[in-house]
Amino acid sequence: MSRQRAIGLDVGGTKIAGGVVDADGTVLTELVEPTPEDSDAEAVLAVLLDIVERLRAKHDDVAAIGVGAAGIVEWPQGRMLWAPNNAYRDWPVREQLEAATGLPAVIDNDANVAALAEARLGPRPYRHLVLITVGTGIGGGLVQDGRIYRGPTGRGAELGHIVLNPDGPVCGCGNHGCFEAYASGTALTRMGREAAADDPDGLIARLGAERGEVTGQTVTAAAGQGDPTALDLFGRLGRWLGVGIASLANIFELEVVVVGGGLVSTGDLLLAPARRAAREFAYAREARATAPIVAATFGGDAGMVGAALLALDEGRTSVG
Amino acid sequence: MSRQRAIGLDVGGTKIAGGVVDADGTVLTELVEPTPEDSDAEAVLAVLLDIVERLRAKHDDVAAIGVGAAGIVEWPQGRMLWAPNNAYRDWPVREQLEAATGLPAVIDNDANVAALAEARLGPRPYRHLVLITVGTGIGGGLVQDGRIYRGPTGRGAELGHIVLNPDGPVCGCGNHGCFEAYASGTALTRMGREAAADDPDGLIARLGAERGEVTGQTVTAAAGQGDPTALDLFGRLGRWLGVGIASLANIFELEVVVVGGGLVSTGDLLLAPARRAAREFAYAREARATAPIVAATFGGDAGMVGAALLALDEGRTSVG
Repeated sequence: MSRQRAIGLDVGGTKIAGGVVDADGTVLTELVEPTPEDSDAEAVLAVLLDIVERLRAKHDDVAAIGVGAAGIVEWPQGRMLWAPNNAYRDWPVREQLEAATGLPAVIDNDANVAALAEARLGPRPYRHLVLITVGTGIGGGLVQDGRIYRGPTGRGAELGHIVLNPDGPVCGCGNHGCFEAYASGTALTRMGREAAADDPDGLIARLGAERGEVTGQTVTAAAGQGDPTALDLFGRLGRWLGVGIASLANIFELEVVVVGGGLVSTGDLLLAPARRAAREFAYAREARATAPIVAATFGGDAGMVGAALLALDEGRTSVG
Repeated sequence: MSRQRAIGLDVGGTKIAGGVVDADGTVLTELVEPTPEDSDAEAVLAVLLDIVERLRAKHDDVAAIGVGAAGIVEWPQGRMLWAPNNAYRDWPVREQLEAATGLPAVIDNDANVAALAEARLGPRPYRHLVLITVGTGIGGGLVQDGRIYRGPTGRGAELGHIVLNPDGPVCGCGNHGCFEAYASGTALTRMGREAAADDPDGLIARLGAERGEVTGQTVTAAAGQGDPTALDLFGRLGRWLGVGIASLANIFELEVVVVGGGLVSTGDLLLAPARRAAREFAYAREARATAPIVAATFGGDAGMVGAALLALDEGRTSVG
């Protein structure tokens, strides 16, 4: 029984969450700390070890540690190669965690493990699923036949960086017209600022002035008040989300597309236009079903829960 | 030893090729017939059975039949659900071939089996590969860990219909801005006609007038004579090819991207701009290698050879 409980850690650009998680996804205890300002490997490791120590003090039967982190993680070595919003490069997370804790550890991309949690423990089990997280950026996770696809060394499944228009806006990654450049919170901020500049008396501009700047949240607030411009921007954002989903659904044969991340809390404001566009751009509709697009079950906990599930899986594999 | 030889059949929109193929990819005997004008299931089946019979008359040790066909093939049932350029729908190819020949048969998408041939028998074995065929349309095949990816029921890997610009030109499939709408022979024809209309005294227009109409081949001929407009069109076509490849390479972790189909015979005219764009749109270049883009080894025979390889594989599986 002692192998049925693991610590899941979710390392984001702004916060680090850790929890003791059962095999059925129940979170027994959870801790959250801010991501250190400089976010270099040493500082982040110290936070991870502190969370692990405090969680183990309450649960002495933890069998393994799983980490989900934004960025490119070499698999199965658990080396963080590169992260878009953190300073660390070539950081041997798995090796350092195992040495410091004496527990087996696994490290994977945060959206990969979130996809695992949604596939395994969503409303019903799914074996073929894409997860798209719409937050500051776009994260993507892919489950094929019940297993995370990450490519032979973990460098695959960068779904946020498929190209939706090579002449499109610059993405945070430096390329042009990525999915992330069109359908993320950053894209909503960009569109909101353009709208505010176009109409300085409009609600978006006025709310932005009250708050000091226009962000995606300004647009969300304006949409909540029924502002037609803000509603139109959500229609455009959702349409791009649906185009990206359609592109992925033409490659993969999916049972479901799960949308997570902070912006999914806007519900049908985002998902209704996404569903329309995903259907519009679906290939060969008479021979291929269009996968339903649903909101994530685990919300902000998906990375933590999925990381723990993966740790339990790998523990089982290595134990036999 | 009798399980080491199969008939491979490649069913295209204009011709049907069949050959007796060894496990090492050697084509012992090959036959080619035109695709029947009406291309309904009954007429195509008659051609397939005629080719099989003539091949078996020369080789009495054929153990299995493999078919690669353009379109969506239900797997493993071998039912042709839908094809872009043929009239048949819901055609139980596998069942009918097995009943008529007494041999085990497998049916798959033509680009899927071509990808298998390139992965297994190219210059070196590849376990992670994308094949893109640039012909009238764009076909795509995907090999993951040495196996064809087709999704749970064969409806996956429609790589020619990822979206490269939702506001782009209409594709043969009815959607807008597909990879196929930008980087296929059909796209080259469209661009050539636009160029001829813009410059009625240019070489493309003059060659088109001589031949009755402007096609992709007119543009290829003009490029061969150094016509700057035609060279520019190839630069644009190749760039779109590279953008599509980059988008796929950001999803998959690949050892190589193989380009086949009729247009690859233009060599660097197509591949040089494709390589530049694929590199330009590659995600996180400091942490992810850019897969090389190479011309297909098997050219027009890849579908036939791959279909035979798949038949031998499946025969082995079913025999144990």
